[in-house]
Amino acid sequence: MDKRFVYADNAATTCVSSAVLEAMMPFLTQEYGNPSSIYAIGRRAQRAVEDARMQVAAALGAKPNEVFFTSGGSEADNWAIKGTLERLAPKGKRHVVTSAFEHHAVLHTVKYAGCDATYLPVGSDGIVDPQDVRKAIRPDTALVSIMFANNEIGTIQPIEEIGAVCKEAGILFHTDAVQAVGNVPIDVNALHIDMLSLSGHKLHAPKGVGALLCRRNVLPPNLIDGGGQEGGHRAGTENTAGIVGLGKAIELATADIPGHIARVTPLRDKLIAALSQIERSRLNGDPVRRLCGNVNFSFVGVEGESLLLMLDNAGICASSGSACTSGSLDPSHVLLAIGLTHEVAHGSLRLTISDETSEEDVDYIIATVPPIVSRLRAMSPLWERIQNA
Amino acid sequence: MDKRFVYADNAATTCVSSAVLEAMMPFLTQEYGNPSSIYAIGRRAQRAVEDARMQVAAALGAKPNEVFFTSGGSEADNWAIKGTLERLAPKGKRHVVTSAFEHHAVLHTVKYAGCDATYLPVGSDGIVDPQDVRKAIRPDTALVSIMFANNEIGTIQPIEEIGAVCKEAGILFHTDAVQAVGNVPIDVNALHIDMLSLSGHKLHAPKGVGALLCRRNVLPPNLIDGGGQEGGHRAGTENTAGIVGLGKAIELATADIPGHIARVTPLRDKLIAALSQIERSRLNGDPVRRLCGNVNFSFVGVEGESLLLMLDNAGICASSGSACTSGSLDPSHVLLAIGLTHEVAHGSLRLTISDETSEEDVDYIIATVPPIVSRLRAMSPLWERIQNA
Repeated sequence: MDKRFVYADNAATTCVSSAVLEAMMPFLTQEYGNPSSIYAIGRRAQRAVEDARMQVAAALGAKPNEVFFTSGGSEADNWAIKGTLERLAPKGKRHVVTSAFEHHAVLHTVKYAGCDATYLPVGSDGIVDPQDVRKAIRPDTALVSIMFANNEIGTIQPIEEIGAVCKEAGILFHTDAVQAVGNVPIDVNALHIDMLSLSGHKLHAPKGVGALLCRRNVLPPNLIDGGGQEGGHRAGTENTAGIVGLGKAIELATADIPGHIARVTPLRDKLIAALSQIERSRLNGDPVRRLCGNVNFSFVGVEGESLLLMLDNAGICASSGSACTSGSLDPSHVLLAIGLTHEVAHGSLRLTISDETSEEDVDYIIATVPPIVSRLRAMSPLWERIQNA
Repeated sequence: MDKRFVYADNAATTCVSSAVLEAMMPFLTQEYGNPSSIYAIGRRAQRAVEDARMQVAAALGAKPNEVFFTSGGSEADNWAIKGTLERLAPKGKRHVVTSAFEHHAVLHTVKYAGCDATYLPVGSDGIVDPQDVRKAIRPDTALVSIMFANNEIGTIQPIEEIGAVCKEAGILFHTDAVQAVGNVPIDVNALHIDMLSLSGHKLHAPKGVGALLCRRNVLPPNLIDGGGQEGGHRAGTENTAGIVGLGKAIELATADIPGHIARVTPLRDKLIAALSQIERSRLNGDPVRRLCGNVNFSFVGVEGESLLLMLDNAGICASSGSACTSGSLDPSHVLLAIGLTHEVAHGSLRLTISDETSEEDVDYIIATVPPIVSRLRAMSPLWERIQNA
């Protein structure tokens, strides 16, 4: 097949869609007013921010006054966790229940927040058991934070059941839904979610904008103090263009989630079927309870970074795990959490496709990956050892 | 004069300049890679972020590894202050020296950080006395935080002297330089600045991006934990387009500061001279030690908000103080700090011009403000009382 450019790393980031950019452009040009200013171009900017707030709220079944714009998912996670501990620790609640395979924006925040944490195990299928959540809750538990869908292996967690457990126990429930928004129907009330983090750039909005959805009665103290923006709860002049982009993107991404799933799932499953044919390959994460665009494989005897560089050379953008830690040589904590050995975890490949991925793109990946895996194995002392064993 | 649109609120926010937008556009379109990704479009995004870091460092005499991108000035202020207290409070240092007329991103942060604070008085000229800083330092002082230039009255503080006092006493010095960058030559080493906050949208870059400059040996613990971005010190996928815009904007804004000052100062002084002719008017802040684009007047017997609305109606964008608190009915804490009464503080007008302001714009302001002041006074019971007194 002819070489082509295939972007298959939509879990790392997405392109800004043309409709989103079009919505943003006025706010990068003539509509530059500060939303806090009282003259006309300020008022128009404020109206645009409030329209975006309604779009985000409507997409997730929340009220507009439960939406707080942030600089992204990481800030939202930090605010939710650190703020809740700041609020509840003086009442003797400084225990957090989370899972071993959360995003680092949750894991590191929990680690540095000076709380007592329970890291729930994750099944080999990449799913957290709601009964484990129930058992982990203690009298001093301040918060349960379990991600909606995993960023590496794409497994969708039983959020409704976990929400019900938390509701029954009277414990706050936060979910990092950065990967899920737009890919899974979400209604924060039906799912008993108290706080939800989301990010624009995973949704075809730009980088540098996100939101924390939070029920008003459990709003944590501010992470960023100062001016009266976001109802006095998150200071700093609003990123008007980014917020408008996020509003438009979430509206588009949630307009027809069943249609999106119906379009992308067959492409995902075609990839999974083809890559499963590779000798000593392993699909990571449950084959069904996973995001429609997520494919994650381990290939025994292959070094993940070499695989990525050869794919890049072939025009395919993919990753071995979270982009946020791609500089690290440590194996993915997610893959270790679902029981992979260090060796196998090192040879993993994440392909994340989107509505913009074509059948031809998928066919190109299917034609490209197996020979590269073979070439890498031919050079691998580990693979040789395995073959001779 | 014919009605025209005059934007005279550049201290609230600025338009994105065309050169900045041009630099950003690739990163809002085809160059959408995550800077942490190892394939080509990721590496190009990372290079763009590092180029911007060099631009910011070069503009302020810092090293690139002393520049940490944030979502704006407020986040930078929060990080500097809360982080420093988190680091030094366990060592018994929980006292902060600041001034009574800081931006709320500093004042509210100090207020909610649970520290002991000294709020230095400000002279009627709007200048903090370095000797007051010296006297306020105690054995348990963790930090001095004094703004570089005030956001309402534009007065430029004796930062070099304050820096020298802090250096001599061995106390960390942070400055919120959001209003000063691009308007005053800044060399963080010559001025003995340990930490400096800046914001893109005051510099013709977009909203939602800023930076904290910080000497490596006094780097505070993270405000936002998670992925390894910004050397592990500020998590969250980089706002690539915004960062590139900030880099370009600061390069442009600092390329010829003397020329900028020489162009804008005569326009400012023309405005000051004309508005001084209005009966019972008062220029707030020192007439010389102020930002080249800042004009701030009080008009006895005038209600500031009515003045702004009538100016808006005439096409002039201005403010009565910080845009961040414009929703508030409280008089400006800055004007109270320099000794104005509540009544006089309420009748204030801030006009902040830029390189994009023309002589015709200034003439239009000069022709428009006095008759509006007269009309408002004609309707004012307060003014009637003053006239009859």
